[in-house]
Amino acid sequence: MPNPTAAMLVIGDEILSGRTRDANMHHLAGQLALRGITLSEVRIVSDDHEAIVAALNALRAAWDHVFTSGGIGPTHDDITADAIGAAFGVLVDIRDDARALLAAHYERTGGELNAARLRMARIPEGATLIENPVSTAPGFTIGNVHVMAGVPAVFQAMVASVLPTLTGGAPLVSTSTRIDRGEGDIAGPLAALAAEYPDVAIGSYPFQKDGKFGANIVIRGQDGAQVAAATDRLSELL
Amino acid sequence: MPNPTAAMLVIGDEILSGRTRDANMHHLAGQLALRGITLSEVRIVSDDHEAIVAALNALRAAWDHVFTSGGIGPTHDDITADAIGAAFGVLVDIRDDARALLAAHYERTGGELNAARLRMARIPEGATLIENPVSTAPGFTIGNVHVMAGVPAVFQAMVASVLPTLTGGAPLVSTSTRIDRGEGDIAGPLAALAAEYPDVAIGSYPFQKDGKFGANIVIRGQDGAQVAAATDRLSELL
Repeated sequence: MPNPTAAMLVIGDEILSGRTRDANMHHLAGQLALRGITLSEVRIVSDDHEAIVAALNALRAAWDHVFTSGGIGPTHDDITADAIGAAFGVLVDIRDDARALLAAHYERTGGELNAARLRMARIPEGATLIENPVSTAPGFTIGNVHVMAGVPAVFQAMVASVLPTLTGGAPLVSTSTRIDRGEGDIAGPLAALAAEYPDVAIGSYPFQKDGKFGANIVIRGQDGAQVAAATDRLSELL
Repeated sequence: MPNPTAAMLVIGDEILSGRTRDANMHHLAGQLALRGITLSEVRIVSDDHEAIVAALNALRAAWDHVFTSGGIGPTHDDITADAIGAAFGVLVDIRDDARALLAAHYERTGGELNAARLRMARIPEGATLIENPVSTAPGFTIGNVHVMAGVPAVFQAMVASVLPTLTGGAPLVSTSTRIDRGEGDIAGPLAALAAEYPDVAIGSYPFQKDGKFGANIVIRGQDGAQVAAATDRLSELL
């Protein structure tokens, strides 16, 4: 059976402007691979309502799961919850259980649960909350969409909260073999290997170091025995 | 006049599998900001013909420029040129000028211009070549799409070849102000500031360090005087 699929939607003016280098995508990709869920597409859009709604609707129709990051804080540029509500056609309002979480948190820490912070209790109708052990304000799951914070420590904690609730598949197994020859010299044998082992994916990732060309040959698949056999055959061929 | 817009399409099984952390997107985002071209969307798709064609056609219709990275080498998994040809409905074949570049390169370096390497001279009909001062095999521009290599050193060299040929706009000017208070405490004044300065974008990027919460307030715009005025006003307010 093929593994479940996933997409990620990064809501990220700060990534697109070049100010920040995204870290959440790389983290999620690694966690999904371990869980046997295939990350199939990533989109990064700006903090724009229409752009978020359009991308979300395309991704949730195409893949089994969608993970979003960013835009669920208390400030004016945090527009993700409303965009998700619009995409699903449901109301977004302050919810009692989310408000209670925040009230307890700010009572404990001495902060004020003001109008801005209450925005973080605005949850689309029909969603379930995602626990945030780092800073309390919850994410949420609605349909097949998991809405999470952009701050890496919080994003990672939410991923850890969500992933155990999802049905995974066979973890992706991979081997990496470094070949110190130019890709052009090994392309023929590699193509033959790919034809011989159609159930594994064989990727060639060239590098250049100290003026010399080489490539890392990565063999990936769900079936560890096939991956191992193809890797052995690679060593014979090259 | 609004600045020209751009999108990036990363062809990247190695990114989606979590093996590699993308570096090209961050580089391109920074270079486009300097050039006054607004990076509006990024998509990462797997090394799959249909996925590349669909994403490319969506992006080239939506934005002024599209930059792709990856999949133009000599191995069996390098399928970008054919996907671009299919998206534009044009033939892809070995082109004399590209072949001559490669022939001269391999004569100089003592490599063999074999069938695999000749694949790198396969260029969609109607394209113009993008110079590759690092490893010779060219990228190409067709319509509003700029097709570049995935190896970061080569990608960066190709970006440097292409960007001077494009019409830019006013470079994006930005300031970043660190506020050592939680976002919930500053959200009200920030929203007022955003309303007062509608021509700049005001982003709040929270962080958590040593158990304390804070936020970097980034003010961006094409008009340096507006950005400066809004930044001064931010200091007054907070």
